[in-house]
Amino acid sequence: MTGIRAAAEAPPARGGPQAQPPVPLPELDFAAALGRIRRLVWQTPVLRTTDTWLKLESLQRTGSFKVRGAANRLLKLTPAERARGVVAVSSGNHGRAVAEVACVLGIPATICVPDWADPSKLRRIRAAGARLLRSGPSYDEADERAAGLAAAEGLTLVHPFDDPDVIEGQGTVGVELAEQLSGLGEVIVPLSGGGLVAGVGLALKPRGVRIVAVSARRASVMLQSLEAGRPLRMPDEETIASALSGGIGDENRFTLRVVREVVDEHVVVGEDDIRAAVRSAFHDHRLVVEGGGAVGLAVLASGYRPRGRAAVVVSGGNIDAPTLAAVAG
Amino acid sequence: MTGIRAAAEAPPARGGPQAQPPVPLPELDFAAALGRIRRLVWQTPVLRTTDTWLKLESLQRTGSFKVRGAANRLLKLTPAERARGVVAVSSGNHGRAVAEVACVLGIPATICVPDWADPSKLRRIRAAGARLLRSGPSYDEADERAAGLAAAEGLTLVHPFDDPDVIEGQGTVGVELAEQLSGLGEVIVPLSGGGLVAGVGLALKPRGVRIVAVSARRASVMLQSLEAGRPLRMPDEETIASALSGGIGDENRFTLRVVREVVDEHVVVGEDDIRAAVRSAFHDHRLVVEGGGAVGLAVLASGYRPRGRAAVVVSGGNIDAPTLAAVAG
Repeated sequence: MTGIRAAAEAPPARGGPQAQPPVPLPELDFAAALGRIRRLVWQTPVLRTTDTWLKLESLQRTGSFKVRGAANRLLKLTPAERARGVVAVSSGNHGRAVAEVACVLGIPATICVPDWADPSKLRRIRAAGARLLRSGPSYDEADERAAGLAAAEGLTLVHPFDDPDVIEGQGTVGVELAEQLSGLGEVIVPLSGGGLVAGVGLALKPRGVRIVAVSARRASVMLQSLEAGRPLRMPDEETIASALSGGIGDENRFTLRVVREVVDEHVVVGEDDIRAAVRSAFHDHRLVVEGGGAVGLAVLASGYRPRGRAAVVVSGGNIDAPTLAAVAG
Repeated sequence: MTGIRAAAEAPPARGGPQAQPPVPLPELDFAAALGRIRRLVWQTPVLRTTDTWLKLESLQRTGSFKVRGAANRLLKLTPAERARGVVAVSSGNHGRAVAEVACVLGIPATICVPDWADPSKLRRIRAAGARLLRSGPSYDEADERAAGLAAAEGLTLVHPFDDPDVIEGQGTVGVELAEQLSGLGEVIVPLSGGGLVAGVGLALKPRGVRIVAVSARRASVMLQSLEAGRPLRMPDEETIASALSGGIGDENRFTLRVVREVVDEHVVVGEDDIRAAVRSAFHDHRLVVEGGGAVGLAVLASGYRPRGRAAVVVSGGNIDAPTLAAVAG
């Protein structure tokens, strides 16, 4: 762990032309969402370890929690929207989730990815029968291509995080966790675009659970945007936590605001800590965890002491075997 | 899968001087054992997959179910026995389990292993502070060395399977599974020395659960002994399922008989099927499973159709990263 910052220390939000427009977030119903998506997602296990509990979304269908938001969004499409198809931009996990849910539901899917997306995730996207478009060296370029396709072809854009239905789907991780683990006091959640943190936060904060968000230092656009009070655009950096890379959108509508509201504490972890967490997950727990899924474990390993009964969301496991062997030794 | 045999097809037991002596198995109380060992073992998760449910003892403390039997046995020692210490023979997982439980309980432990035992398991045994003795090229030699030490040094021998307390401990896998998964119809369990199959079988058969035992073809001493009606001694063969290797003891007292009683169907799997199961566990479920832990998955992958709601015991995950990468690619 290379830094801990309390949310209260962030500078106040600044206004101006780039501040997010005040789009009201609709009422979310996480329990209803869990009922809706149950046939498409698995109830992932909670593993007790010596220190804490791990919510293993790495064992989720499609290998990450992303399938929850994708399923919730796609199940709410109208028949006409289903027939026209969907498009998504993704560094891999969201794309795989959309592709596999779309495959099950018989919906045509197009996935736009940055050139650096993990090849093993791309194989899964193709295997689900989706149209896969490599869209340039940055996430933002893939984002623009997806938006262009949505407009040109009448496709529904399934946003990876900044969408109420997606946030509602990701929040089912929190509902499920609270059912599985009584007396939950704190939950440690990876932060990227903010869909998971927003969903879990909105689901669990009313239950008195403390929300800790963990950013990878090299994929900390959201954290820096929070500090700036507006969405920043930053170059993608190479990181073992590539699943957390990507912008938060110049016109972020929901997650920037919700993350600011729900997070009690922000923690930042560096590359070495994340690699050590991937290695430790393998050796100590026989878990396959990708870098982006391991940032919560990295926090624990660094000596952070959770308050009360704490759970770490292990958010994804899509790492290929050679990379895992290189990291885990 | 290279063969399925119904238990009923096995030839009848033959008598003679080598038949197991009729030692009565004491009454076992699996629920009490679960209460006893709970502070030393974890309740492992049950993962739903498309086809079936997986009981993930690969995520168990020490990386395998063996810690259940070891904990149950060691917690029943008298203070004098604890002070003198314990000795165990193991191809790795039982030794690691005994070493780690002994470490927590402050009991001196000696572990005798065959030369081919997995180095990563040996590191864990040493890390737990146990005395580690490499005892020759075969499991039977390690077995004899452990027996000799027990006699010479007054150590209590913690048998890896042929012991009522160990069987009772392993049976807690079944009790836990039945609590976690209602309506369980069939359980698919790896078979080696028979401790796990005997325990799970005795715990679940009275509940009407069908017991399927899976042997690795190259570690099938128990199955062949069942067919011969007496304990056979066979050379250790090299196998990816090395955790299942080893003899069942010339004077097997309990497991040969109990396994014969409780198993409804025997299945045998070959090396290629086991490797494919390890690979599939990694790619399809992000699970780290060692060869011996994957034989139940190998059965499913081969087209075996379970009766009713079935669970597979994934019994261990102690495989090193290079081996996993070599198998999973």
